[in-house]
Amino acid sequence: MTIKLDVQDAETGEVSRDTLIKRYSAVRLETEELCRPLVTEDYVMQTSPDVSPPNWHLGHTTWFFERLLLEPYLPGYSPHHPLFNYIFNSYYESLGPRNDRDRRGFLSRPTVQEVYDFRSAIDRAMGDLIETVDEPHWPEIAAMIELGLNHEQQHQELLLMDVKHIFASNPLRPVYREAGDRKRAQGTLPPPMEFAEIPGGVTQIGHGGRGFAYDNEGPKHRVFLNDFRLMTRLVTNGEFLVFIQEGGYDDPRWWLSDGWATVRERGWRSPLYWAEADGTWMVMTLRGYEPLVLDEPVSHVSYYEADAFARWAGRRLPTEGEWEHAVCSRGITPRTGNLLEDRAWGPRPANADQITPNELQQLFGDVWEWTQSAYLAYPGYRQAAGPLGEYNGKFMSNQMVLRGGSFGTPRSHIRATYRNFFQCDKRWPFAGFRLAQDE
Amino acid sequence: MTIKLDVQDAETGEVSRDTLIKRYSAVRLETEELCRPLVTEDYVMQTSPDVSPPNWHLGHTTWFFERLLLEPYLPGYSPHHPLFNYIFNSYYESLGPRNDRDRRGFLSRPTVQEVYDFRSAIDRAMGDLIETVDEPHWPEIAAMIELGLNHEQQHQELLLMDVKHIFASNPLRPVYREAGDRKRAQGTLPPPMEFAEIPGGVTQIGHGGRGFAYDNEGPKHRVFLNDFRLMTRLVTNGEFLVFIQEGGYDDPRWWLSDGWATVRERGWRSPLYWAEADGTWMVMTLRGYEPLVLDEPVSHVSYYEADAFARWAGRRLPTEGEWEHAVCSRGITPRTGNLLEDRAWGPRPANADQITPNELQQLFGDVWEWTQSAYLAYPGYRQAAGPLGEYNGKFMSNQMVLRGGSFGTPRSHIRATYRNFFQCDKRWPFAGFRLAQDE
Amino acid sequence: MTIKLDVQDAETGEVSRDTLIKRYSAVRLETEELCRPLVTEDYVMQTSPDVSPPNWHLGHTTWFFERLLLEPYLPGYSPHHPLFNYIFNSYYESLGPRNDRDRRGFLSRPTVQEVYDFRSAIDRAMGDLIETVDEPHWPEIAAMIELGLNHEQQHQELLLMDVKHIFASNPLRPVYREAGDRKRAQGTLPPPMEFAEIPGGVTQIGHGGRGFAYDNEGPKHRVFLNDFRLMTRLVTNGEFLVFIQEGGYDDPRWWLSDGWATVRERGWRSPLYWAEADGTWMVMTLRGYEPLVLDEPVSHVSYYEADAFARWAGRRLPTEGEWEHAVCSRGITPRTGNLLEDRAWGPRPANADQITPNELQQLFGDVWEWTQSAYLAYPGYRQAAGPLGEYNGKFMSNQMVLRGGSFGTPRSHIRATYRNFFQCDKRWPFAGFRLAQDE
Amino acid sequence: MTIKLDVQDAETGEVSRDTLIKRYSAVRLETEELCRPLVTEDYVMQTSPDVSPPNWHLGHTTWFFERLLLEPYLPGYSPHHPLFNYIFNSYYESLGPRNDRDRRGFLSRPTVQEVYDFRSAIDRAMGDLIETVDEPHWPEIAAMIELGLNHEQQHQELLLMDVKHIFASNPLRPVYREAGDRKRAQGTLPPPMEFAEIPGGVTQIGHGGRGFAYDNEGPKHRVFLNDFRLMTRLVTNGEFLVFIQEGGYDDPRWWLSDGWATVRERGWRSPLYWAEADGTWMVMTLRGYEPLVLDEPVSHVSYYEADAFARWAGRRLPTEGEWEHAVCSRGITPRTGNLLEDRAWGPRPANADQITPNELQQLFGDVWEWTQSAYLAYPGYRQAAGPLGEYNGKFMSNQMVLRGGSFGTPRSHIRATYRNFFQCDKRWPFAGFRLAQDE
Repeated sequence: MTIKLDVQDAETGEVSRDTLIKRYSAVRLETEELCRPLVTEDYVMQTSPDVSPPNWHLGHTTWFFERLLLEPYLPGYSPHHPLFNYIFNSYYESLGPRNDRDRRGFLSRPTVQEVYDFRSAIDRAMGDLIETVDEPHWPEIAAMIELGLNHEQQHQELLLMDVKHIFASNPLRPVYREAGDRKRAQGTLPPPMEFAEIPGGVTQIGHGGRGFAYDNEGPKHRVFLNDFRLMTRLVTNGEFLVFIQEGGYDDPRWWLSDGWATVRERGWRSPLYWAEADGTWMVMTLRGYEPLVLDEPVSHVSYYEADAFARWAGRRLPTEGEWEHAVCSRGITPRTGNLLEDRAWGPRPANADQITPNELQQLFGDVWEWTQSAYLAYPGYRQAAGPLGEYNGKFMSNQMVLRGGSFGTPRSHIRATYRNFFQCDKRWPFAGFRLAQDE
Repeated sequence: MTIKLDVQDAETGEVSRDTLIKRYSAVRLETEELCRPLVTEDYVMQTSPDVSPPNWHLGHTTWFFERLLLEPYLPGYSPHHPLFNYIFNSYYESLGPRNDRDRRGFLSRPTVQEVYDFRSAIDRAMGDLIETVDEPHWPEIAAMIELGLNHEQQHQELLLMDVKHIFASNPLRPVYREAGDRKRAQGTLPPPMEFAEIPGGVTQIGHGGRGFAYDNEGPKHRVFLNDFRLMTRLVTNGEFLVFIQEGGYDDPRWWLSDGWATVRERGWRSPLYWAEADGTWMVMTLRGYEPLVLDEPVSHVSYYEADAFARWAGRRLPTEGEWEHAVCSRGITPRTGNLLEDRAWGPRPANADQITPNELQQLFGDVWEWTQSAYLAYPGYRQAAGPLGEYNGKFMSNQMVLRGGSFGTPRSHIRATYRNFFQCDKRWPFAGFRLAQDE
Repeated sequence: MTIKLDVQDAETGEVSRDTLIKRYSAVRLETEELCRPLVTEDYVMQTSPDVSPPNWHLGHTTWFFERLLLEPYLPGYSPHHPLFNYIFNSYYESLGPRNDRDRRGFLSRPTVQEVYDFRSAIDRAMGDLIETVDEPHWPEIAAMIELGLNHEQQHQELLLMDVKHIFASNPLRPVYREAGDRKRAQGTLPPPMEFAEIPGGVTQIGHGGRGFAYDNEGPKHRVFLNDFRLMTRLVTNGEFLVFIQEGGYDDPRWWLSDGWATVRERGWRSPLYWAEADGTWMVMTLRGYEPLVLDEPVSHVSYYEADAFARWAGRRLPTEGEWEHAVCSRGITPRTGNLLEDRAWGPRPANADQITPNELQQLFGDVWEWTQSAYLAYPGYRQAAGPLGEYNGKFMSNQMVLRGGSFGTPRSHIRATYRNFFQCDKRWPFAGFRLAQDE
Repeated sequence: MTIKLDVQDAETGEVSRDTLIKRYSAVRLETEELCRPLVTEDYVMQTSPDVSPPNWHLGHTTWFFERLLLEPYLPGYSPHHPLFNYIFNSYYESLGPRNDRDRRGFLSRPTVQEVYDFRSAIDRAMGDLIETVDEPHWPEIAAMIELGLNHEQQHQELLLMDVKHIFASNPLRPVYREAGDRKRAQGTLPPPMEFAEIPGGVTQIGHGGRGFAYDNEGPKHRVFLNDFRLMTRLVTNGEFLVFIQEGGYDDPRWWLSDGWATVRERGWRSPLYWAEADGTWMVMTLRGYEPLVLDEPVSHVSYYEADAFARWAGRRLPTEGEWEHAVCSRGITPRTGNLLEDRAWGPRPANADQITPNELQQLFGDVWEWTQSAYLAYPGYRQAAGPLGEYNGKFMSNQMVLRGGSFGTPRSHIRATYRNFFQCDKRWPFAGFRLAQDE
């Protein structure tokens, strides 16, 4: 796995120890900051096999540094606790046996305090490592640290997803963060759908050159795309509500066969976290249980629901190549997206003033966008040997690619080439979609 | 349901308010005392569908008083929290909808502190009720309180069973209570099995007369018993180990058909909580993870395992009628049993000095004893209407009766007529067995 | 297992070879006669894990004679086919590995013709055995043959149960046998319920003395019974329909906890094979799909449904001791019951003329009667060693006793002490019930 | 759905009625010819949810003509049987409710004879339709008939797959067809792997122009491919055996995460139908149970196993674009492949003489080849409205593409653009693989 850093000096490609220490501290602090609203009891909940307890996220991200940096590289380092490798290894077959994923919610010990102590100890040792490692090893160490920080950033979003699921599973419906002055426009009709024209041809997608990226984003390679049209904003709650009201969940015509089976088996009648009570649609959010806001992007839909909506609307989902090509050819960056640092705790409505036939918005942040591309290896991809090879490569089956990040994704973590992936039936990610159509 | 009190005046059958207040306080305090070794994180764990989190036990036992006493009887009382009826109702269909049993481990809220506050509030209100209820209602109220206290005592033992399961599910194997000066005799061979002769005939079993008893213990009725022989002590770990070593878990001859299917599906090779490591048998106890003690009673066996051992040994399990008749005809009482108040936190070896051919011991306390009687209604039993009818009567299928209580049963809670019951495959109760044989 | 013959000479207890050959031929022919309405395709169906294909019944009953008589006792006998022991062994652990029960429906080979050929070959060899075995072995052989014939008679009824399930699983709803001149009285209201008074006391139940009986029917032993009252006829379809119409399947008050869970999980709204179409209740029978006949005994109900009906009606089910005592004390025999030889292919309405307050009818035949007794060992019961010990003894958990036989039970197979048994949730047996109440 | 015929006149694009009648008869006869080795009992078996009984295949392919041609187009036609639409509809939501897929093995009726009668009746009516339909409707009718025939050809291969599963599920291991003079070379070592160089660039894949093709094969569209290398023959049993012997099934490094979970859950240790007995590898084939032939292509492997082998071998699977481009750029056609008409009843070894570094063989026939492409819509694909839209489009999730046909595929049914698809865990198709690598 070629790891490329985004804290590199633009010209020399070098990374200073100071810069990396600052970034290390910032990322690590952010994780703890995200946990601040939790009480001790919240930390140890696992409300579905997909969910991990916050305490486990805190420990696992720390274990990653211990296991992949301190143990191999810090002379004389011995593990903080002999069983933490067993407890906090997630899925790395090459790093030894581990506690089953669906038993993470059985871990009342180590306690929350003990895991925070583990974090502190590892942070001190990481400081030692960064300061003392000799120059020849520095680039390799720096790259691994950057990977560890990106790993932790991924878990920051997972943490928010999981906290939301934990709170939504509780009859008392706790509030994660108060909404502040968020303008609620639940009665507002969504602005009309517009589609931007994107010329195709042979183009390049995937990551190349400097800056950090995961192995699955590369190699950069050529693809041929037809001309296509891409919806300028995300599909809204209001639009999805029409699909529901017109019987979308009852009509097999719109559904993939697997999707239709899933709808019936699980009794899906709306996106996850929606509930109809006395004729009003309510929705569980990180800011509490509140009436559905019609012009906000729809969220917590599966691939099946996104795809069914697209068929019902006579459109389709974009491919990941189309999405990336649109973003790159228009020069769109994560700079203005509604991302984690914005502290919105949910997607925001599109900018109605900005809705012009050809101006794309909401591509970064708000919600991840389902694409109709399966998560598979790019041409020329080779999985690394050892534990890092397990990071992404072994998940290349039965999953679809999502692009663009959400309100829960750190800004320094997302980029145009970033490939997120989930199974078609998953609904707990912050995932929505936009439509595409052939020219 | 006729509820009979054991705090009645022996002659008048009356119960004084003072006496009941004292008993109420003692029972309520004991529950909290049993929770003292727990950290906050332990309180919210549900490590199997059978297990309830300690926090839930604390709330549920409190809800019982609120729902069945304060709401109907205390003028002006309104529920402590509008959703606690939903959260803390266990299985009473007549008391409204409720949180699914297998979602009790998703309850990070109400927090542990909030549940302790709930307990305090209800205790104050119960004090008011006991002091202020008018004399005509007092007997009925007193009977209901006694039921609530017995209910809470049942949950005291469940709490210990569940804490043990929670701790045993944790790779760190926490200790509940230190063992103190417990004499460990793991090398000691168990004393020989002896069988006491018990004459049969028409005899009476079941509860009648004064003192509290559950509805399922009555009516007192006549049964005919053949003469039989009953093992004078409980079967030990050492004896069960011989069964294992002689291939007991591999030989279908000893097993009920359902039991054999269970052994293979679940891969049972020993009682629950046993583990073999490097040729040594270890066992998880409330006092920590320790070498198996051979002369202690075997525990955490299912009915299937108890029955298989009995067949292998050429004996059988006693019926509940035989057990009760033996106890009553010999005048044995819970007085000397190893029960909760003894704070042993586990079963104790039989008294070797006391092993005489005809002297029964360990009938009360140590571990519950599986009988070969199905849990069914006694002749003349009628289920009460309303929620109290749901307490016991609706479970009369697919369960077997256990007798005598365990080291986790409060002394004031157990008696000769007490019928505990579990499904044949359950292993998390503190359950063992003794053998019987025909004359 | 002590096997006692009913073809014994009344005085000497001896069995003549001629008599046994005749009985052997008659039983074996009857099995084939019951298959006459089947087409080849019907023979190999397994429409639920409980159901066995008719071809398998034909082979298994034959294998029983080959494996337990010809192989051990006929000199020079070698198995008809080397794999038939694997294919036709049902559940005898001591007789070697076997095809899984739920894979019986995968057996297109041996073909139906090959199984009939197997039957012929074994019948010839059994003729040889009976003729040639020497006198000292004859009593043992004769007893084993009698067991084999009773085993085959059990399978005759199972065959009918399974054919009914196979036909009911087919959208074309085939007819097994035409009804003939059966009087249909679907509009007739059931005659009123009457309860006969039966005095209790110490009485004896279970099998003793001469005549064939299964091991689980003995030993004969004393029990104490209270006085009780027993419904004089079976509960009817019309009565059960009232239970349905009054919301019986929607009201948890009437149900055992396990029963209520089963009702909801499986969506039960009526007995098995009932269907409501356009306001008419239809029912699948062996005589085809036809309107529900109100005064016929209700059939294809589980223990849970029988028990729920009884609670709803303010009564209870009888125990097996009560049932047997009532039958024996009244001198009722199978002679006049609606049994297999009557070729009614379904239960018949009670004789309305015979409905007097104190005259019991329908105790033998029509439908098996659920009792509230668990299927457990009688006092003094010892399971035999070897394969015969597996016949009954290993099923003594999680099942309830049914008494009296059905329209599908051969008359020479049923008796007052006969204990049939099924799990509480089984609905494919020909099982109904009558009520009891305390004096 | 644009349906394009391969019985068209090369110049005019017209189809003569005579030509189509002949093709209709030939295809329909072939299905029945494939059933000739079956006994009646075989016809009704469903040995896994994936398998359909042969009798159902016979009826379903016939129903397709009745439902989509005779009912809409033949004046005065009324269905052969009112319930056959319910029984023989496979998965067409738009064609009404249907018998559940996993209940196809419960259909002893209609009998085999009745289904053959159904076939005859529909064949006669189809003759009438072809002869009498007026000229303006002819092209549409002809196109639909061609679809129906291709549908039936698909089922011819499914029938063979299912018969193999049915026979392999039987302890008696029936033989479908005797092997004839097949040369068995089980000791022969496979010839060495060679890889042909295929230049990439912008190329076109997918179906366009004349001749029948399914909708999912189009539109023809441009793709960009890197240069790559493609193994010249299929991977053999001998090569796969080395993977097994070197611990391939025990080493998570080679497996996708989903694949590794599947291996452990299902206990996979070899391809389906392989069995090791006394150190010899045996395999169930359509020609009986026989020793593994080392130089034959490996078959009955899942995508997971093909992918794991490729990783272990340091290669990868080809994409479907690569496969199609290799075939088209080399001008390879189905003409010489080992296909259904060759009556080989299994894959054949590669031609050792033909193994040159750059000569591709076995691309058509022998076994389907797993590709690393997910089964998704081509750019510009639009699903048709109505039942035909359900033929392929709704399965575009969680499946992988296979190319090239097998020994069970009719020659007139396969082509370079043909896209077969199965879930990653399916092993009952006749599926193997070849390797690819980057230049």
